[in-house]
Amino acid sequence: MSEKMLVALDAMGGDNAPYAMIEGTVNAVNGNNNIKVVLVGKEEIISQELSKYKYNADQIEIVNATEVIETAEHPVAAIKKKKDSSMVVGLHLLKDKKVDAFVSAGNSGALLTGGLGIVGRIRGIERPPFGALFPVRTGVCLMCDSGANVDVRPSHMVQFAQMGSIYMEHVLGIKNPRVAIVNIGAEEEKGNALVKETFPLLKECEGINFIGSIEARDIPEGYADVIICDGFVGNVILKLYEGLSSTLLSVIKAGLKSTVMSKVGAALALPALKKTVKSFDATKYGGAPLLGLNGLVVKTHGSAKAVEIENTILQCDMFKKQAINEKIKENLVLNKTKEEN
Amino acid sequence: MSEKMLVALDAMGGDNAPYAMIEGTVNAVNGNNNIKVVLVGKEEIISQELSKYKYNADQIEIVNATEVIETAEHPVAAIKKKKDSSMVVGLHLLKDKKVDAFVSAGNSGALLTGGLGIVGRIRGIERPPFGALFPVRTGVCLMCDSGANVDVRPSHMVQFAQMGSIYMEHVLGIKNPRVAIVNIGAEEEKGNALVKETFPLLKECEGINFIGSIEARDIPEGYADVIICDGFVGNVILKLYEGLSSTLLSVIKAGLKSTVMSKVGAALALPALKKTVKSFDATKYGGAPLLGLNGLVVKTHGSAKAVEIENTILQCDMFKKQAINEKIKENLVLNKTKEEN
Repeated sequence: MSEKMLVALDAMGGDNAPYAMIEGTVNAVNGNNNIKVVLVGKEEIISQELSKYKYNADQIEIVNATEVIETAEHPVAAIKKKKDSSMVVGLHLLKDKKVDAFVSAGNSGALLTGGLGIVGRIRGIERPPFGALFPVRTGVCLMCDSGANVDVRPSHMVQFAQMGSIYMEHVLGIKNPRVAIVNIGAEEEKGNALVKETFPLLKECEGINFIGSIEARDIPEGYADVIICDGFVGNVILKLYEGLSSTLLSVIKAGLKSTVMSKVGAALALPALKKTVKSFDATKYGGAPLLGLNGLVVKTHGSAKAVEIENTILQCDMFKKQAINEKIKENLVLNKTKEEN
Repeated sequence: MSEKMLVALDAMGGDNAPYAMIEGTVNAVNGNNNIKVVLVGKEEIISQELSKYKYNADQIEIVNATEVIETAEHPVAAIKKKKDSSMVVGLHLLKDKKVDAFVSAGNSGALLTGGLGIVGRIRGIERPPFGALFPVRTGVCLMCDSGANVDVRPSHMVQFAQMGSIYMEHVLGIKNPRVAIVNIGAEEEKGNALVKETFPLLKECEGINFIGSIEARDIPEGYADVIICDGFVGNVILKLYEGLSSTLLSVIKAGLKSTVMSKVGAALALPALKKTVKSFDATKYGGAPLLGLNGLVVKTHGSAKAVEIENTILQCDMFKKQAINEKIKENLVLNKTKEEN
């Protein structure tokens, strides 16, 4: 491995592939000498697209992969069948330590399946979740799982809490991070079957600061540092965060233009308004790493545009320095289940 | 029954009971001659609290109930055991047609259980959902289920879609309302087990305009008229809607005061800003009726304050005129399941 940070990027995954991937890559390397991107996918298409841009040739490499895993494909079948897909080839580069990270905007389920099967998980981890940072009033919060595992068991949720807690404490430096489970009421008795079964396990779990249930209305206020839920609920929360912020901003802008007085006010206030809303934009955190793997696999939005791809590539440098999975490995104390005792 | 609209109110349920219930009741009757509220709960406490207010004595009546179902109690056990609770007594008033509606801010699960057991459901309905209206950019949207059933089966979701569709078409007059299921991707293959099993049933369901999956980010834009999900997810969405709108508004206000120029702008723009955000406030719709019951049972927020109680009481008049459940009864074409054929 060279001294440069080496990021393999799935050039074919996501709604805007390969164009956004290539534009984002060029912008990332043009802005940072210390990064090299390995574009994985159909060589001919990538070369042709790359020829439109100027960049330092040492910083971009293409690795050919002839197949593409589509968003709608069944994850397990796709990973098994499409050995020469950009995702499978990219994950092998990571496994073989030819790159420091693998980034994809493609099929989340396939990325999880491939991450588990090819890169492998830390001993004892059952299901790696996506750990996504998002903005709250008081700063930043971690959503765990933000979309990798849509049907989970209580024991998985407990590990999400443990890994999320290690992330916030040992990577972001938040002492004794407050861990809460998403629920529809404050009381232990509330919730669906999954939450009711998970709650007592979290209470008993050592090494985490479990503060109980959090109702969705309290999430933006920053009442917890680590938010635990299944990947379906986590994905719904983060996407609503994005969508509602953006809709509200545009409704507010329209409203500000509704009267002459407010129009004048808006002209004066709009720069500050935009800045404020930007500080609350969930997309700025871009990628979410799979927690608990033996390597750095990062998912970006399926709908990611060039700027998000660029941000995610640059983020990998930070993720690598933060050594999230290494810290999880060092600090994780696994709860012994009955079967293990 | 008199000509007045008769609303029984659970005076003991909810975080702010009984004070907010009594204040809200007094304000509702003082502003509307045509409503009579029956306060159900501990007579002595209610009388004492009522004595602080001025109101037309013909418009408020107390029905004594000595027990209270707490928020954290197990719904089925609570309804079975506490025969003299404000909730059970109130539901019996509705069943016996002594009132036109029953409103509670108490234990949602108990309200569902009691609604099913005491008031009864329309023939063929498996699980009544809460149908909550909430604001979107293009107007209004119905969330179904917004919190009654936290663990559901695909057949329940299909009925949520049918009832929600009838509500929007026959009550709100939206022709051929677009029905969408909350999902984490646009494709049929996406989702958790519940969504994957429900999707093909919704596609085959006659009499609804099923447009497929909706991602949470698209909900505020108004891409669908009826949003289908289980009560856990629905509750999370509505509460995040509330919380995020409120947090964003306060972050924006603080941001507007951050520079001298924006401060001047804010002073001019704030009235328009407030008006705009108010148009997007999910709490203004207040109560959500249980769809598919043989009577009008309405749930308000557990955290409802006097103004929300007042709004919900006034809403009952509209709900009664809209005859939601009667229209569901008239228009529902039940899908025959294999067992029935």
